[in-house]
Amino acid sequence: MADSELPTRPKPEETQEAGAPAAPAEGDSKSASKNAAKKAAKEKAKAEKAAARAAQEKAQAAAQEANDTAKDLYGQLPETEDVNPTTRFSDFTEEEKEVTVVARVDNARVQSAKLAFLMLRQQGQKIQAVIAAAEPISRQMIKYTGGLNVNSIVQVTGLIKKPEIPISSATIQNLEIHIRKVYMISEAAQMLPMQVKDAERPPPVETADDAPQVDSEGAPIVTLKTRLDNRVLDLQTETSQAITWISSGVAQLFSEYMVKSGSRWIFTPKLVGAATEGGSNVFEVKYFKRNGYLAQSPQLYKQMCIAGDMENVFEIAPVFRAEDSNTHRHLTEFAGLDFEKTFEHHYHEVLEFAEDLLVFILSQLKERYAAQIATIQKSYPKAGDFKLPKNGKALRLNYMDGVALLKEAGVDMSEQERFENDFTTAMEKQLGQIIRDKYDTDFYVLDKFPMAVRPFYTKADPKDSRFSNSYDFFMRGEEIMSGAQRIHNIDELEASMRSKGLDPTQEGFEDYLNAFRQGCPPHAGGGLGLNRIVMFFLGLPNVRLASLFPRDPQRLRP
Amino acid sequence: MADSELPTRPKPEETQEAGAPAAPAEGDSKSASKNAAKKAAKEKAKAEKAAARAAQEKAQAAAQEANDTAKDLYGQLPETEDVNPTTRFSDFTEEEKEVTVVARVDNARVQSAKLAFLMLRQQGQKIQAVIAAAEPISRQMIKYTGGLNVNSIVQVTGLIKKPEIPISSATIQNLEIHIRKVYMISEAAQMLPMQVKDAERPPPVETADDAPQVDSEGAPIVTLKTRLDNRVLDLQTETSQAITWISSGVAQLFSEYMVKSGSRWIFTPKLVGAATEGGSNVFEVKYFKRNGYLAQSPQLYKQMCIAGDMENVFEIAPVFRAEDSNTHRHLTEFAGLDFEKTFEHHYHEVLEFAEDLLVFILSQLKERYAAQIATIQKSYPKAGDFKLPKNGKALRLNYMDGVALLKEAGVDMSEQERFENDFTTAMEKQLGQIIRDKYDTDFYVLDKFPMAVRPFYTKADPKDSRFSNSYDFFMRGEEIMSGAQRIHNIDELEASMRSKGLDPTQEGFEDYLNAFRQGCPPHAGGGLGLNRIVMFFLGLPNVRLASLFPRDPQRLRP
Repeated sequence: MADSELPTRPKPEETQEAGAPAAPAEGDSKSASKNAAKKAAKEKAKAEKAAARAAQEKAQAAAQEANDTAKDLYGQLPETEDVNPTTRFSDFTEEEKEVTVVARVDNARVQSAKLAFLMLRQQGQKIQAVIAAAEPISRQMIKYTGGLNVNSIVQVTGLIKKPEIPISSATIQNLEIHIRKVYMISEAAQMLPMQVKDAERPPPVETADDAPQVDSEGAPIVTLKTRLDNRVLDLQTETSQAITWISSGVAQLFSEYMVKSGSRWIFTPKLVGAATEGGSNVFEVKYFKRNGYLAQSPQLYKQMCIAGDMENVFEIAPVFRAEDSNTHRHLTEFAGLDFEKTFEHHYHEVLEFAEDLLVFILSQLKERYAAQIATIQKSYPKAGDFKLPKNGKALRLNYMDGVALLKEAGVDMSEQERFENDFTTAMEKQLGQIIRDKYDTDFYVLDKFPMAVRPFYTKADPKDSRFSNSYDFFMRGEEIMSGAQRIHNIDELEASMRSKGLDPTQEGFEDYLNAFRQGCPPHAGGGLGLNRIVMFFLGLPNVRLASLFPRDPQRLRP
Repeated sequence: MADSELPTRPKPEETQEAGAPAAPAEGDSKSASKNAAKKAAKEKAKAEKAAARAAQEKAQAAAQEANDTAKDLYGQLPETEDVNPTTRFSDFTEEEKEVTVVARVDNARVQSAKLAFLMLRQQGQKIQAVIAAAEPISRQMIKYTGGLNVNSIVQVTGLIKKPEIPISSATIQNLEIHIRKVYMISEAAQMLPMQVKDAERPPPVETADDAPQVDSEGAPIVTLKTRLDNRVLDLQTETSQAITWISSGVAQLFSEYMVKSGSRWIFTPKLVGAATEGGSNVFEVKYFKRNGYLAQSPQLYKQMCIAGDMENVFEIAPVFRAEDSNTHRHLTEFAGLDFEKTFEHHYHEVLEFAEDLLVFILSQLKERYAAQIATIQKSYPKAGDFKLPKNGKALRLNYMDGVALLKEAGVDMSEQERFENDFTTAMEKQLGQIIRDKYDTDFYVLDKFPMAVRPFYTKADPKDSRFSNSYDFFMRGEEIMSGAQRIHNIDELEASMRSKGLDPTQEGFEDYLNAFRQGCPPHAGGGLGLNRIVMFFLGLPNVRLASLFPRDPQRLRP
């Protein structure tokens, strides 16, 4: 009964016998390239691989025949070797002692018949290893070591020493390993679609077809497309390692704050029966003999949890948007951080709770992930340090304050625009700059948006119905959260739906509306985009860099 | 820019003007009932509601006309009232003092013109409130209070006192509230599809059409279907409140353990380009101009994260299964808890890590959620306390030990069955009972499953290729986790695929297989079903009770 994982038995239609294994994908080759050319390249790669392997086997055999003094010190890991504990680079000290490490081969080169070098890599950290001929180390072992395929994973035993001069190409420059043993753990193919060390340099902003292929120093330029096509290699870079830690940190800090507040972790369905949330932006799913849809947000369900007396709930789950937006900041699937909460007297209780949440997440990121942030800034220095309010409380302005700040700066919205439109993306960015200059913060909140630009379930401002009890959160002038007090009175809710042109009797709304007919406490909440928080916090140029395996209208792989 | 939440503006096709609001759904009525009957019922409900409202308004108006001495003490919340802090039932002490609470009306009745009672409810906790005529409380106020619609949310101010005799129908029996003010926060409809207090009794196991509608004491029996159709009301029961806390706890404890172990929280795509995971059990999605699929597990992606040097990763995310299984323990969407981890020398390093994870989760549930567990056991006492191993370490047996235990008990598998089949569900349950009797634990692990019953990526046992380095975790004889050491060598992986009848050159496998061609460290992992952990830990009769809004082949709402 292995049904928590993948099914075990293949279907009959899948049981046809397979051909030879495919060679690795070529880097940057157009995906539209002819199959024939691809097949030929595969055959060629296969032949090269076979030849390389045959040569290696021959060399090993020859070595053994020649009674290689080092024959047990390299090659396949002997059974007797697998009991040594291994050390991590980060635990190295300047004390001269023998260590065993498991690491990637970042680079391998033979200097002479008696000397070879490896650059070893662990999660982006690099250290140099050197092997020199001296009993029992043989020339065959040096040849083997210097000829290792880049990206292979090896187990190396050696002596940690201080090098005569610092190794400038390594991240650990003041130490090197003098190799005594080197065994293969996992061999990489000779040909890789891209080199991890080339991907360590940030992708070009320019990605046109006629963009240069090498940089001013002659090093290959790896485009964003190549990186994402070969994301497993790209994840191995120091920068990607650091970004994935920040993503992990955002989710963890969100849940930590919510749990501490007494919130309940919920899992609402992503498969829903009706496209109540907005027509054409919803993915359609074949659900047995009928149609289903993918939830665009947990909005209706988290409100139903509140109506179910859960009082304070949060969810961390994928959000699906079938928007055909091909921009630097849109994904069709992203990680949503949602919360919903009752309040006693005023929705500002929840707003303050959410402001404190963001201040907690962003300040704790700085505290707990300082090393990762510094690493990422080496590749993406442009945006600079993320500025948080000095007093530990979020800056909150009203929407109309934003209008006024923009007007001061020469951007004047007409009376109609103020109440019926929202800021454009360009205006938001400009406002972000104005607020940074004036208040010295990259994080701020706008409250009281016009009712006309908010969804039907938003509570109007009881004092001025042109506005609403709703708020957006911004980082560096871009929106990362939207939230509001929700209407909890059924009559008010139905009237709001009608005023927005929605039909409360439409199929799919019934369960949602019943939740309010059966009594529901006043509540407010919000929905955050994890990937955008990561992107804007770090000043990344593209949200795809803040997603493990990004999805957009063009991309459904890897 | 409210794009973290729902879209704001309706599509033109949705803008038709709506009719009157629908009445609440009827309880237990067959979903196949004629539309006409439904419409008539709705009309009737609507008329009744309108009549009730009119009557109430008239009563209030009359009260005011009669110069009601209590007119500011009940009805709509006056603006000036909203500044009193409210108290929770759980904070009540025996000290006689005035409190303000916000709570549901669980029941309301007029005893006489001078006396009425409310049963007030907060997340399943109940306390009695009493109102008696005495200056300034008027007869009109008593009539209003005793006539409140059940399930309405009210704000009550009153004096906490010790009742003369304990209130046996309340959960807080030694206190009652003497009402001074009662205001409406959210009014429930007069007619509810089911009563929360009826749903407090567990659903019948028997759900046939001719099952009795009332129990031996004449109280209505609320079937599982009615509960799930009206899940928002069902969530308000003390039992559902407790179950949702346990679900929340499992997710929180899983992430707590993983984060403490240095694991990175990942979000892998649920929208995938190819149905590599097993043909007909995959949901198909319309992805712009092509087809996509919903991931059946994060298996291939979490392995790709390991190949991407992430070393230790975990995910908490929905898992989708298009299996047409209509059983008590299958869902088409459930919360998956997945982890994947490299190891140094032996996959048992990861297995022990996972065993300790489960012991941590289950023992901490007992410690942190004792009150909730006790509440749930009142409704579902049959399975009894969940037994954990006394020494704090998981019991681990081999698959063949299980075969031997079953044989001792008279269940003998043939030689062929032992290596080519897995235990049936009945055999698993029997084995669970045998192990409980012999080892006094409801949680245990079976290791070394036959290779024939495991997925292609499973590592065969190097000492006996009929078996594999794979394991299942069981609670009360039912599987809650499946895991294994994975093959990390590309040649071995392709050979395993072929031996299982899969074609490594099939579209969709390329990115996964490239991850191994580019070098991948040895690793193992597992996937847990959150809902099943909750179900078996608590001994619930149906997994739907352990899901907020369950999805099965028949159910796509609410």
